[in-house]
Amino acid sequence: MTKSANLTNQHTVWHEPTITRKDREALNKQRSCILWFTGLSGAGKSTLAHALEDRLHKLGKRTYVLDGDNIRKGLCNDLGFSDEDRTENIRRIGEVAKLMIDAGIIVMTAFISPFRNDRQVARDLVKDGDFIEVFCDAPLDVCEHRDVKGLYKKARAGEIPEFTGISSPYEEPLDPELMIDTARLSVDECIDSIIEYLEKKAYLDSE
Amino acid sequence: MTKSANLTNQHTVWHEPTITRKDREALNKQRSCILWFTGLSGAGKSTLAHALEDRLHKLGKRTYVLDGDNIRKGLCNDLGFSDEDRTENIRRIGEVAKLMIDAGIIVMTAFISPFRNDRQVARDLVKDGDFIEVFCDAPLDVCEHRDVKGLYKKARAGEIPEFTGISSPYEEPLDPELMIDTARLSVDECIDSIIEYLEKKAYLDSE
Repeated sequence: MTKSANLTNQHTVWHEPTITRKDREALNKQRSCILWFTGLSGAGKSTLAHALEDRLHKLGKRTYVLDGDNIRKGLCNDLGFSDEDRTENIRRIGEVAKLMIDAGIIVMTAFISPFRNDRQVARDLVKDGDFIEVFCDAPLDVCEHRDVKGLYKKARAGEIPEFTGISSPYEEPLDPELMIDTARLSVDECIDSIIEYLEKKAYLDSE
Repeated sequence: MTKSANLTNQHTVWHEPTITRKDREALNKQRSCILWFTGLSGAGKSTLAHALEDRLHKLGKRTYVLDGDNIRKGLCNDLGFSDEDRTENIRRIGEVAKLMIDAGIIVMTAFISPFRNDRQVARDLVKDGDFIEVFCDAPLDVCEHRDVKGLYKKARAGEIPEFTGISSPYEEPLDPELMIDTARLSVDECIDSIIEYLEKKAYLDSE
């Protein structure tokens, strides 16, 4: 480059080429979206999110799961479990999910997210069709019987305050995009029905 | 599926297949990383980040740029510009960038990030080699002369308190992975040198 180009450089507003979500989706051969899994502890949210990711990855899709493991220990490690902090937790998850769909990714979130209003806040961050609410619908007694992490036992013993389903409410989705009967279906059957929905709605299209 | 499978289902800890960062990197044919652009306002951080994304996207790489536009209006819209809030802002950006590299993406961040300690916090969140600090090195007088957004003028007029370079310090990186002389090089030359680094270090490898 010449010296005059150097000088010109200092007086020019540099052009900012911008790759858009559309460009990233085209490269990934998919339409990005958020699959927002909600339901009681033990209802299968994390299991389904990871199993879905497994299936989608094998189809060559670009995916990511946001869950307690990577959010509560990282981005939200300054938050506790007060109502205010729970709401802020869900807001941040929604914002990160929004960034990830902008990055062209199919993102799954696996959090109890018990309050309708909080889920609505996450939904309202993105466009129509970007947010797919997946209600993992298993009765409390089934979840409590599973008690994978031993949390219900602790909650019943009063060791965990405000435990969803025991001492804090779970507000069921009124009109979720998907309702999955995780008490009766196998994981594979659950995933089949989600994949069927994604195919029908053209999220997995190659263009 | 049979009814007994249904029942078994309720007593089993579901297997959680997990797609890892390695799997996502393999699918994307790249090694994910954070390119952390730092420098004065007007030093070219955002321009270079977007120009680099443009170049990488054309090479078929999966990329995303975190900048003021998508962070300050979203995830960090509860934060102001106090020292405490600036530090929290950078921490959250670091955490989101960490999630994105886990998602297999090459992520670029374009924030002044004036304090060494804050940048170190972001660096320490990830593994060696995941964090590439790119110092956009342009002298204050060049940046102020450009004054793309008219911010220096406002800062000199006292309309913006604690403006980096004017009324608040910028702590230059002591040992950045890349130092780019944005006052003298063209955008293309800057991008060439970054791409050369990424190639040399095998971030763009196809396996």
